[in-house]
Amino acid sequence: MRAVVFDNYGTFPSLAEVPRPRPGPGEVLLRVAGAGACHSDVSVYRHFEEGQPGAQKPPFVLGHENAGWVEELGQGVTHVDVGGAYLVYGPVGCGHCRKCARGQDTYCENVATMPYLAVGLGRNGGMADYMVAPAHHLVPLGDADPVLAAPLADAGLTPYHAVKQALPHLAGGGRHALVIGLGGLGQIAVQILTALTGATVIATDTKPDARARAERHGARTVAPGEHQAEEIRELTGGRGVDAAFDFVGVTPTISTAAATMAQGSRLTVVGIAGGTHEWSFFTSPYESYVTSTYWGTVEDLWEVVDMFRAGQIAPEVERYGMDDALEAYRKLEAGELSGRAVVVPNDS
Amino acid sequence: MRAVVFDNYGTFPSLAEVPRPRPGPGEVLLRVAGAGACHSDVSVYRHFEEGQPGAQKPPFVLGHENAGWVEELGQGVTHVDVGGAYLVYGPVGCGHCRKCARGQDTYCENVATMPYLAVGLGRNGGMADYMVAPAHHLVPLGDADPVLAAPLADAGLTPYHAVKQALPHLAGGGRHALVIGLGGLGQIAVQILTALTGATVIATDTKPDARARAERHGARTVAPGEHQAEEIRELTGGRGVDAAFDFVGVTPTISTAAATMAQGSRLTVVGIAGGTHEWSFFTSPYESYVTSTYWGTVEDLWEVVDMFRAGQIAPEVERYGMDDALEAYRKLEAGELSGRAVVVPNDS
Amino acid sequence: MRAVVFDNYGTFPSLAEVPRPRPGPGEVLLRVAGAGACHSDVSVYRHFEEGQPGAQKPPFVLGHENAGWVEELGQGVTHVDVGGAYLVYGPVGCGHCRKCARGQDTYCENVATMPYLAVGLGRNGGMADYMVAPAHHLVPLGDADPVLAAPLADAGLTPYHAVKQALPHLAGGGRHALVIGLGGLGQIAVQILTALTGATVIATDTKPDARARAERHGARTVAPGEHQAEEIRELTGGRGVDAAFDFVGVTPTISTAAATMAQGSRLTVVGIAGGTHEWSFFTSPYESYVTSTYWGTVEDLWEVVDMFRAGQIAPEVERYGMDDALEAYRKLEAGELSGRAVVVPNDS
Amino acid sequence: MRAVVFDNYGTFPSLAEVPRPRPGPGEVLLRVAGAGACHSDVSVYRHFEEGQPGAQKPPFVLGHENAGWVEELGQGVTHVDVGGAYLVYGPVGCGHCRKCARGQDTYCENVATMPYLAVGLGRNGGMADYMVAPAHHLVPLGDADPVLAAPLADAGLTPYHAVKQALPHLAGGGRHALVIGLGGLGQIAVQILTALTGATVIATDTKPDARARAERHGARTVAPGEHQAEEIRELTGGRGVDAAFDFVGVTPTISTAAATMAQGSRLTVVGIAGGTHEWSFFTSPYESYVTSTYWGTVEDLWEVVDMFRAGQIAPEVERYGMDDALEAYRKLEAGELSGRAVVVPNDS
Repeated sequence: MRAVVFDNYGTFPSLAEVPRPRPGPGEVLLRVAGAGACHSDVSVYRHFEEGQPGAQKPPFVLGHENAGWVEELGQGVTHVDVGGAYLVYGPVGCGHCRKCARGQDTYCENVATMPYLAVGLGRNGGMADYMVAPAHHLVPLGDADPVLAAPLADAGLTPYHAVKQALPHLAGGGRHALVIGLGGLGQIAVQILTALTGATVIATDTKPDARARAERHGARTVAPGEHQAEEIRELTGGRGVDAAFDFVGVTPTISTAAATMAQGSRLTVVGIAGGTHEWSFFTSPYESYVTSTYWGTVEDLWEVVDMFRAGQIAPEVERYGMDDALEAYRKLEAGELSGRAVVVPNDS
Repeated sequence: MRAVVFDNYGTFPSLAEVPRPRPGPGEVLLRVAGAGACHSDVSVYRHFEEGQPGAQKPPFVLGHENAGWVEELGQGVTHVDVGGAYLVYGPVGCGHCRKCARGQDTYCENVATMPYLAVGLGRNGGMADYMVAPAHHLVPLGDADPVLAAPLADAGLTPYHAVKQALPHLAGGGRHALVIGLGGLGQIAVQILTALTGATVIATDTKPDARARAERHGARTVAPGEHQAEEIRELTGGRGVDAAFDFVGVTPTISTAAATMAQGSRLTVVGIAGGTHEWSFFTSPYESYVTSTYWGTVEDLWEVVDMFRAGQIAPEVERYGMDDALEAYRKLEAGELSGRAVVVPNDS
Repeated sequence: MRAVVFDNYGTFPSLAEVPRPRPGPGEVLLRVAGAGACHSDVSVYRHFEEGQPGAQKPPFVLGHENAGWVEELGQGVTHVDVGGAYLVYGPVGCGHCRKCARGQDTYCENVATMPYLAVGLGRNGGMADYMVAPAHHLVPLGDADPVLAAPLADAGLTPYHAVKQALPHLAGGGRHALVIGLGGLGQIAVQILTALTGATVIATDTKPDARARAERHGARTVAPGEHQAEEIRELTGGRGVDAAFDFVGVTPTISTAAATMAQGSRLTVVGIAGGTHEWSFFTSPYESYVTSTYWGTVEDLWEVVDMFRAGQIAPEVERYGMDDALEAYRKLEAGELSGRAVVVPNDS
Repeated sequence: MRAVVFDNYGTFPSLAEVPRPRPGPGEVLLRVAGAGACHSDVSVYRHFEEGQPGAQKPPFVLGHENAGWVEELGQGVTHVDVGGAYLVYGPVGCGHCRKCARGQDTYCENVATMPYLAVGLGRNGGMADYMVAPAHHLVPLGDADPVLAAPLADAGLTPYHAVKQALPHLAGGGRHALVIGLGGLGQIAVQILTALTGATVIATDTKPDARARAERHGARTVAPGEHQAEEIRELTGGRGVDAAFDFVGVTPTISTAAATMAQGSRLTVVGIAGGTHEWSFFTSPYESYVTSTYWGTVEDLWEVVDMFRAGQIAPEVERYGMDDALEAYRKLEAGELSGRAVVVPNDS
């Protein structure tokens, strides 16, 4: 079968012919409907070097945002419909620790001894005609379009988990939320916030068209500039935002977000850009804080699918055939995509 | 000044001339902008007898949903703007117990020794040219219309508090809420639920036009009938509702709501009609429950005003001059009102 | 191997020779260290009839409170130590629904199509020399005694889950908790409450020695009698208890508990005796409620083991060899046990 | 009457004769039973200069940890017992904003226009024969000793509020807490944590006798040193602490605490020493955070009194007569106190 393979550190992936995989015990084989191309793939093949923390050892098939139709069940699998459409939860932990026991493989306590992080990250992913995944990581899509759904596995799940942890800060009237960085994840964050909370959602990005899209999703937007933090604070009536989400994560965006916070607020840095923030008792509003999140849980993904099916999350997608998969990555690196590139190896 | 006075148990109120009150220490005098007529007023003057639990001893001026402009400050009052428009939190507790200490006068621990429950309920209320209220029970309205705001003091605060307690049950994608009884409070409950949560809001009432109004606020509606509970459950995909609110509160409506519940759900009975419900381990979904609430807290009322000013709550109001105040009560009893009757003694 | 087999509805179990099981994919074989005998086993073989809701179809090996040493791994199992001691989470759901995805097999959404509820309840359990269990349902015991630990799988997990759901009601100074029914589960509930909260724990049981044991675990006790509810309320300074746990669950015990509740409190009925309670707006304190729970989650069981290893939970155990297993059930039915009977088929 | 007066910035207080105050509307006059001397008093008179943020304008009577007997009621005060013993909530906000409305004067939204922060901080406090306080800031002590209770107004309330915000992080088995700095507040934090949670409480201080006291309150202790953070982490089984409380608050203690954190944990800096902490995505465990708190709410103080009366909090107190009040401050500055110095102007 055809597959987009990460062959070596620092090397652009190749389109290769590889053997069709077989599902092991507790696994399923899926005919892939869609596989999203994500910026973290670029980090995997472009930036990491062997032995670095976070490096995923090649070779493997890329693709950690996947949906497909179940083709074959491995031994011991029940309650999965052959032929049915499913979204695939990407992270794969040890399956036995207390975090995996609640479906939070992202925080697996045995991560240090695991040979991979997720499908498409250290083990073969979905950017291929077929893929294998653990059966208990499937979320049924029913009659929803699996191509549109594919990006939800990361670009939907990551902002959903970040927002869900922050919901107690936004529970009630008169709340304000801030989203910095209006790419794929940020746009979905705006959709989730307007759907799940009554907060005034304030959004910012350097690109005017990204701000315009966020406005169509119900956000009020602020342009970058010297007085950005003050403008944001003004939109809150001076009290500051109750929950901020930084999908960029460099020091300047964290600083901007931090300068807009209310007492008791939560700033979640989602963008993995390594920015830092100096906390001090006197400069941080009482009981406010900066924290991080990483991807989400299986249960979260069920709820992302609920929102998708209810029309509350609508990812913007550009479809690419398998033969154009590398072109999708080229455009992703060049910043030429406006929606999420989804590689579509098979027709329904 | 003119006032609507509850003179005696079992007796329709009268429009009377009474002395203008003076604010005591810690109180303010307000020139009344609007005073809402509420069903519980009818209970007060029509149904209760002396000595009954809940009976409020006459005579006193009715009106517990009040907004107005501050006319005069009592001794020791600061941080209140003379001339400014304020909404009045109605309940008045002892001011010294642990519940009053957090602004929850409704659950005052000294209620048994208090001579009244609230302004307009045992002590003089706002259905008059002027009224007196505790200064720390005022919520500033800014430039919002105090006539439209007046009903929020009960018809907004009561559903807000009920919904806020239930928000953890509705926090996330794929949730469902049910509202039974689409009068003044129920309609605002629908507005609050669609604003503050991503839940599918299901609403029901015997009156088709009430259901139509709820649909305009974003609810899906179900008509009464033999299969009502099944139809509601079907709208939830079979899982049941996560939070239900019964604004009627008779045994049949509680039974209907109870028959639609999901595991871990909350049914809040708000309507004070004395209905009962038989709980049993085998017939109630695991970890689900039935409970009550009563009015709300001062902090809640701040948040109700936030939602009102943000356009998320819009009470339907019929204005009556002071001379027509009794007509408002007559229509309320006759069921001839479609919105909330607000008596408007003074022009702005 | 030897096993205690439930052969037929309404029939006392037999000690039989059965084939040693083989672990399927994703399962492990355990050499059993201890298997607790539980009252629900008696219901299984004594009270249920074929086709009744809750009936578990014979024949199968009893025992849903199990600990043992891993003997053999099924296909696809990693991160489990052969030879290591583990406690077994009993409930077995479909493994694929949103409840199973978070380790809450008790509330599996596909329960209606599952042929069993748990190990020892519809499928073979641990009252045998060897047993098979899903690998992701094991909780490592380290160097803790697996015989003492075995009862924790139900008699520890059930009160732990019930208490954990109620912890928000007990979070802070000045709280009160009530435990009704001081058998195996109730005694552990007292231990969990005194360890995890600062609440004054009030406990009651008809048996004086059960009350004495609860006092040694830190509870204040009240004897049954006409004024029991008043005495309990008096111990709370008149405010009522914030969380009550009824391990009996008949109508009179639920009524007693309900009569002691504070505003905003939670009464959890754990005992599956089918008692009922009539809720009404006027007789239930505001925002209080009655609810149920059933067993617990895999994550809960990890925390139960944490408490056991920290010495915070100490089950009282009577050991029986495999040849005396039926005698353990006989004594259980006759009420002749003071601690939990644990059948010990193998030496360490 | 006699009073300890802060006369001028940078100047040790004096013992002076001042007029006995009169209670205004909504206030009460208390005969002082005890007034605790606190380190923040030293900051007030020793370190601040006019116009600095946080500076409190002299002259005023010191003492923000006060208990006493009500001597006289101001106008409009009800539900307070003349002659009864009360603990005084210190912070005094505007009384009208949404924070004051829930009894959280510490975070008063009008703080910028308030002429004082609290009794004894900008307005006259309790280090005198008599003092005046807002009536709704009194918490009844019943028959508890008001001299022992006095320090609870800050040394009890501050750690209580900090711990209460962190309780969700400690709710369950297998949790770990860390307390850095075992002076007056830190010792009480240890008592609160051992009473309200089941966490293993780890405590550290440079002074061996402070560590020994913490051990008597149930903590495990770690001595300072190069490997301190590793030793703490080892006591948690490698997972890190779920909630840490730094009562020192300099950069090195914050760093030590930060190096011991678990995923999803909360580090609360209570000590106002201006330390800083550099947060980064890669060095902070996922979903963990550093935050601050400041004093507490009226409702919290009710619960502190509940714990005090239940014997769960026992402050260590050294009594000083009014004539020795300045000696108490001298010893406080010299580090010669082992317990809290409480000035006792009147006998009961």
